[in-house]
Amino acid sequence: MTRLTIEETAQWLKNCEDVYILIHHNPDGDCVGAGYALAEAFHSLGKRAAVVAQDEIPPYLSHMVPTDPQAFQPDFPAQHIIAVDTADPKLFGEDVQAKYGDLVELCIDHHISNIGYAQRLCLMDHAAAACEVMYTVIREMGVTLNDYMGLCLYSGIATDSGSFQYDYTSPNTLRVAADIKEDCPNVNYARLNRKLFRVKSMERLKFEQILIDYLEQYLEGRLTLICVTQEMMEKHHIAEETADGIANFPLQVEGTEVSVTMKEKEPNVFKISMRSADTANVSAICQQFGGGGHIKASGCVIEGTAEEVKQRIISAVEKGI
Amino acid sequence: MTRLTIEETAQWLKNCEDVYILIHHNPDGDCVGAGYALAEAFHSLGKRAAVVAQDEIPPYLSHMVPTDPQAFQPDFPAQHIIAVDTADPKLFGEDVQAKYGDLVELCIDHHISNIGYAQRLCLMDHAAAACEVMYTVIREMGVTLNDYMGLCLYSGIATDSGSFQYDYTSPNTLRVAADIKEDCPNVNYARLNRKLFRVKSMERLKFEQILIDYLEQYLEGRLTLICVTQEMMEKHHIAEETADGIANFPLQVEGTEVSVTMKEKEPNVFKISMRSADTANVSAICQQFGGGGHIKASGCVIEGTAEEVKQRIISAVEKGI
Repeated sequence: MTRLTIEETAQWLKNCEDVYILIHHNPDGDCVGAGYALAEAFHSLGKRAAVVAQDEIPPYLSHMVPTDPQAFQPDFPAQHIIAVDTADPKLFGEDVQAKYGDLVELCIDHHISNIGYAQRLCLMDHAAAACEVMYTVIREMGVTLNDYMGLCLYSGIATDSGSFQYDYTSPNTLRVAADIKEDCPNVNYARLNRKLFRVKSMERLKFEQILIDYLEQYLEGRLTLICVTQEMMEKHHIAEETADGIANFPLQVEGTEVSVTMKEKEPNVFKISMRSADTANVSAICQQFGGGGHIKASGCVIEGTAEEVKQRIISAVEKGI
Repeated sequence: MTRLTIEETAQWLKNCEDVYILIHHNPDGDCVGAGYALAEAFHSLGKRAAVVAQDEIPPYLSHMVPTDPQAFQPDFPAQHIIAVDTADPKLFGEDVQAKYGDLVELCIDHHISNIGYAQRLCLMDHAAAACEVMYTVIREMGVTLNDYMGLCLYSGIATDSGSFQYDYTSPNTLRVAADIKEDCPNVNYARLNRKLFRVKSMERLKFEQILIDYLEQYLEGRLTLICVTQEMMEKHHIAEETADGIANFPLQVEGTEVSVTMKEKEPNVFKISMRSADTANVSAICQQFGGGGHIKASGCVIEGTAEEVKQRIISAVEKGI
């Protein structure tokens, strides 16, 4: 594997024709934004480029679906395979990995955890988003951004940085966003931000209304916990997928240092999602239960009755904060 | 009144000694940030400077209370009076206006509505926040930012721009935020952003839980309305102040183009707060009822039973979107 600079990456891309761009499964704003912006950059140079993905673009990112989806279809034989925002070929999803996982010639990424599976790697591990890297690459290719590229790149940076709120939002992150806004003044950023950050469906609001009743506070409010049992899900008709999107919900309670979401996967088996508001290392706490992850977001599985599991968690968190 | 450039403003400030800095009543992040950052800039030059305010800094901005509050007290006679982020001396609040409203020698502001009451005006009406202007002024004064100034200025820009999400967030807004982060790398911005944007008190969550039951959707979901009657406030023990902070609540419902909060001030008299998600001009709608305000945030008062008022609003909104 060879590490490429931004300039080398841009030079290599300019020599490509007929490109497939791979993004990861369960696509988020950043991989969709980086993938489609790069494809559009190729199109603007008169080249064919497709985005190849295991899964469809989710509804909350529907604004990134191109107006001419056909132009992004892999209906031509690929000469080159590029990956974006994907640290490990496992993350492409089963089908895409099987077909293309071993053939990636270049990966453009921002994950320090990138395992170096591609022949070439353009990695800015201090970037808040792959789209932060991609903006610089595309400009270095000599491409002038159009509004669709601006929309995609801004969406990726904004979603991955939590609207510029998370730790790794650097001065460069903010400056790239400024450059995008300057290059593409006709994008309605306020409308885009409202869609990405400020709206909830009525169904989601009704679901959160239920969840509020299940918030439990321990350790003088420093630990906020929510326990989603099978009984509770049946009682309120909560779908499995719906219950998956609540790992950050208890973290919003003022005073919380660690939040825990316990979800009963089968009787007396709980999937635990742990979040840290600031300094607590929840990866270390989850490791005690055979799990792990990031310092501020980790998980594990614990067996026992809800009450037993709760007590074990409270005790571990108390020692860990 | 004389308009000053940033350079002229900085030059004038450098010649000041013993300054009172006025901020507006009901202080928000931007006036607190601009006022305290400027006072601290004076302190760093060895000058006395106080912040004079009608009201205290609210709890959600407690991180901006200086560690040495005494240094910001007006316990010396003022030689100069400066105002920040205040478009009209009425907004100082009664006492501050009575004492100092006619004596303002310089106002630093970003409101296009500034009435020009000060002898000198430094106005950047395309800035998202007074703190965006203030950063440039302070740097032009030759002052090196310390962490407290960075915390204040970042808080002002972030709150007034809705974490860089609102319309008037310009490339310059983002670049100033980048410069602040570069100048003051030791501020914990993630913690600050969590406090400003991501937490709610348990009381607030319980209150929102009630509010969700009162959301009403009209015009195929394009209008979302909430009606807070005196009966409802009594039933749920909602305090007057609590009910004042909900004007944006119905706007979060997906699909909403116009949101309306109706609050019964006395029997059959409703104070209306109207918000636009994007293109609807709610100022024009409120003007039909003798009110007005901004295109995206306006208000009026309508008399009648709750049902009558609702029907009049629905009809006006239907014609206005």
